[in-house]
This record gives sequence, C-alpha cells and structure tokens, in this order.
Amino acid sequence: MKLYSYPAAPNPRRLHIFMAEKGIEMPFEPIDLMNGGQFAPAFVALNPMSTVPVLVADDGTVLTQVVAICDYLEALHPERPLLGSSALEKGEIREWSTRIFNEGLMAVAEAFRNSNPNFANRSVPGPLALAQEPVLVERGLKRLELFWSTLDARLAGRDFVVGNSYTMADIDALCTCDFARWIRKSIPAECTNILRWYAAVSARPSAKAG
Amino acid sequence: MKLYSYPAAPNPRRLHIFMAEKGIEMPFEPIDLMNGGQFAPAFVALNPMSTVPVLVADDGTVLTQVVAICDYLEALHPERPLLGSSALEKGEIREWSTRIFNEGLMAVAEAFRNSNPNFANRSVPGPLALAQEPVLVERGLKRLELFWSTLDARLAGRDFVVGNSYTMADIDALCTCDFARWIRKSIPAECTNILRWYAAVSARPSAKAG
Repeated sequence: MKLYSYPAAPNPRRLHIFMAEKGIEMPFEPIDLMNGGQFAPAFVALNPMSTVPVLVADDGTVLTQVVAICDYLEALHPERPLLGSSALEKGEIREWSTRIFNEGLMAVAEAFRNSNPNFANRSVPGPLALAQEPVLVERGLKRLELFWSTLDARLAGRDFVVGNSYTMADIDALCTCDFARWIRKSIPAECTNILRWYAAVSARPSAKAG
Repeated sequence: MKLYSYPAAPNPRRLHIFMAEKGIEMPFEPIDLMNGGQFAPAFVALNPMSTVPVLVADDGTVLTQVVAICDYLEALHPERPLLGSSALEKGEIREWSTRIFNEGLMAVAEAFRNSNPNFANRSVPGPLALAQEPVLVERGLKRLELFWSTLDARLAGRDFVVGNSYTMADIDALCTCDFARWIRKSIPAECTNILRWYAAVSARPSAKAG
C-alpha cells in the first residue's frame, strides 16, 4: 500500500487527521502541489484528475477519493471507529460528513479556486482548464455564510457533530474552518457553538496532521 | 421509519433503485417537486435545504443525503450488499459512486439547474435563491463530456462499474445517463462500453423504480 499526498491541502488533510486518530501509518510519497507535482506525467498516469490524495492498494487498485480511502482503512482497521458502529451512527456520520463537505468545504473551495491567481484556468480540478468566474466567488461566500449558521445550530448543546465522540464529521468541519482562513474568513463571532467546539477539536494532537 | 421523496428525480431515484434491489419497503410520503411541495412549511421544518429524499428514523433522526440513507439501510439489511463486502470492495465502490456523482450527475445538474426556466433563482438547492448563470451551463456540459470518456474507459472489458456484480456505482451511473436526457444529451455513439453496459443495467426490474 502506498499513499501519494500533500497533507497541508484541505481535502487530503481530512485523510491525514483520520489516519492520525486511528494510528495508521503507511509508505508515503509527497506530491508538491505548490510546484505542479500533480501535473507530472507519472502522477497524471496514476490519477488523470491530478488530485491528491491517491492510495494504491497492494493489488494495484487506485483510490482517489478521501471518503473511499477512509472507508477502506476503516474496514481494515475497525478499532477506534470514526465512521460509526451502529447502523444509525453510520448513517448520521455520513449525513453530516457529506453535508459539511458539500455545503462547507466545497463552498470555500468555490470562492478560493475562482479567485486565487495560482488557480487561473484551474477553477475545477482535472484536465478541463476551466476559467475562473467571479460570480462563483460571490456564490461560494454566500454558501459559506449559510454553512456557518447550519453548523452553529447543529453544535448547540453538543460536544461533537454526531454522537458522543469525535468522528469523521468533526474532521470535515475542522478542515473547513481552517480552510476558510485561506479566503480570509474566520468563524463568525456570533457562532459561539462553533467557537467552543473548534477550541476543543483543534487542540487534539491529530489536528497537527496536515 | 418514514421516507419522504419524489422517486422520478435523479438524486432520490438512486435510493429507490437501491431499495428495489434489496427488497426494502417502508412508509412513504410523496413530496411533489413539480408543485413546490419541497417548500411547504412542514417539509422545510424537516429539511431546511428543501431537498429529497428525507428519511426519518424511529428515534427521530433525520437523514437527507442519499449516501447516508443507503449506508444506514445497508447496515440494517446487510443481505444482498450493494456497497461491498471486503474492505477493498467497500473502498472501490465508494470511489466510483463518489466520482460518478460529482463528475457525472452533478455536471448534468449544473447544466440543468442553470438553464431550465423552472429553476430561476434556484440554481443551487436550499434557501439561498441564487441566480442561474449561463457560464455554468457551458461548464456542466464540458464536465459531462469528460465524464462520458471517463466512464467509457472504466467500463472497457467490464460488466459492472466495480467487481463482478451490480452495485451502488452502477446505480449512480444509470441515474446519470438517464438524467442527461433532461438536458437533451444521450450517451455518445462512440462510447460503446457505456452503451453495452447501459442496455444491461436498464433492463433490470429495479430500473423502473423512480
């Protein structure tokens, strides 16, 4: 098994925190996104979408989606579950993990990739070379505002996004909060539930992964 | 347990095919998307994003994401697995299910919601009232072109998207192919692998769900 990644980027960071929480280590090759490592021919041959992370399993199977790699690793290492034990936990963690990713992390990504000069003609990952669109910056910021209120309401009276322990849903939310700083947005002062939760989850040793 | 849905729409249709394949039935209330049923106050109170499906579990937990509802139902009804048995199957089915949803179904949705007159100011689901953007129609169509070639390459020499049996990844791909017709796009003639696979999967009785 081998992992290709760039742990500091928000999407792969989710996987690195997941692995740190579970104590999983594996052979690792850094892909330097700051210097176009994801466009090197050998990496494009592995993943034509030029995204990280990429996990190559022992039989050669290639996984490129964080959710897929986490499902695979959780099944191999069921101890210290981060994706739930009961049927309802599994469903509820997937619910919030998916919503946080789509409504939060993807909202920030929409604003970021359509405004940062380093992403000219790379507003969508992959080979399409799509131009940046200012309207998507605006749209991403509006979606982020809605996300803050959704997450704050969810965390009222809760220590974790789902249930009574730290799960993948907390990891997704933590990475979204930190990614928002890349577009100079921080957790709004009125979101006191998020601020309380954030202080606790960002103090975990695993938060240093990525 | 109770399900609120509109089976003919592409996103919830994935769940209805999943349930048909597994033989799962449950109390059901139709939400008439053609007449604004998703904006009725009682439904918005259940799901502020106004999307279907919504599953309310016996303890009152609300699930709104197809992937979350499928994870929940698969854990309750493990027979006839559609999300994989081995760790690697689970990972690979999640990989392709996620990619097909994001690169295929969401590409069609981007073109559809930004062009269909019924979706004026509803180009993104939820309460934000975001305007339609013609540039996103163009972008969705370009992404769909790339998706056809990705899926066709994947299906070369394969009867199913993953492994040797029908899984959630096939369901996602089938719903994407049928949704494409809503924007007057059909599987390109040169995608002979998709066409062969499509003829087989669309003949399954479950394809009539939704």
